[in-house]
Amino acid sequence: MNIDEIQARLADFAKERDWEQFHSPKNLSMALAGEAGELLEIFQWLTEEQSQQSSITKDQLAAAKEELADILIYALRLADKLDINLQDAISTKISKNAMRYTVEAAKGNAAKR
Amino acid sequence: MNIDEIQARLADFAKERDWEQFHSPKNLSMALAGEAGELLEIFQWLTEEQSQQSSITKDQLAAAKEELADILIYALRLADKLDINLQDAISTKISKNAMRYTVEAAKGNAAKR
Amino acid sequence: MNIDEIQARLADFAKERDWEQFHSPKNLSMALAGEAGELLEIFQWLTEEQSQQSSITKDQLAAAKEELADILIYALRLADKLDINLQDAISTKISKNAMRYTVEAAKGNAAKR
Amino acid sequence: MNIDEIQARLADFAKERDWEQFHSPKNLSMALAGEAGELLEIFQWLTEEQSQQSSITKDQLAAAKEELADILIYALRLADKLDINLQDAISTKISKNAMRYTVEAAKGNAAKR
Repeated sequence: MNIDEIQARLADFAKERDWEQFHSPKNLSMALAGEAGELLEIFQWLTEEQSQQSSITKDQLAAAKEELADILIYALRLADKLDINLQDAISTKISKNAMRYTVEAAKGNAAKR
Repeated sequence: MNIDEIQARLADFAKERDWEQFHSPKNLSMALAGEAGELLEIFQWLTEEQSQQSSITKDQLAAAKEELADILIYALRLADKLDINLQDAISTKISKNAMRYTVEAAKGNAAKR
Repeated sequence: MNIDEIQARLADFAKERDWEQFHSPKNLSMALAGEAGELLEIFQWLTEEQSQQSSITKDQLAAAKEELADILIYALRLADKLDINLQDAISTKISKNAMRYTVEAAKGNAAKR
Repeated sequence: MNIDEIQARLADFAKERDWEQFHSPKNLSMALAGEAGELLEIFQWLTEEQSQQSSITKDQLAAAKEELADILIYALRLADKLDINLQDAISTKISKNAMRYTVEAAKGNAAKR
């Protein structure tokens, strides 16, 4: 499935359940941030080391996979409702970051990012 | 660009800047949630109606596009660091939701989602 | 109990359980944001009207009370760990807001806040 | 100023600016979570060690103080709008935690908190 297909499937899913009424951009931004909060809860008491792929438990990894899916699902729905082209949004942002954080200036420095 | 290509580009971007040291899953979950917070700020004082694509201002739309890009960039980075296949994660979650929220039971009811 | 007493009690609580090791400011900021995400989840599918005190259900109100308590507990812990005087922080911020949002300029306009 | 006085001052502040219309519990939960996201951004690229009071920079500390104030201001407003007694909420939660995480069971274990 590509992005358009997933968005169409999510739109159908909402329509069949009369959920379109709940999916205002405002509400979807809340749902996305709620899921981002659940993602945080997986990692909040782990050290950075313990959060690495090599150290994380199977259950924590499964939870992270599920929260990431939820976040992406709401991001895709929100982009659909606002007619935002996500691939264009990402490409534009990567180019912008490349200008803003040149290799010379940014090396080893996380000042902003 | 497909997902793998974007992830490769983001990984190169981080490596060139010595940013891999900052990109622990723990830190990436914080960065993602921080961007989700910025997304909320766009919509927090708007009514649901005002948040719709037909009512939102150009500036608000541009801001939403940028925040969604940031969220997806961190989600892709985090999935890469944890070896999570995002397309599989999304498909699995959609199937799970279809079982959990049958059309009959869920119709017009946002109890959970 | 005043703020100092609550902070002392929370510090004792953590010490008795050997939890001080987990309570770095970084981790506490994550825990606070995780609870803020749970607060969002209570309201995300409600209209603004439905979220009002007169319309909200008993269960939703109890949940909001619990999430607010969690948020405040982590805020108090974080302030304690960083030696931040919260009453001073709040007074300073209110004065700042009064300067920034004069009644004349801000009337009925939520541009920023 | 005690909690009641701060809440009264915040209510006056909103009334004078015709901001009551924006301060639905739903919107306030978004504003609070948005500020929690800004708090995260202070700490996201710091190690736990660097986030400690002894290591943090003056600017980071000032930023943390300001974000904590914003979070508390929105928490106090939300509690006021929902008629939630925050001191009671905190006491109840601390008692609940004391039952749930007995010293014996919880020692050095952050399973949940």
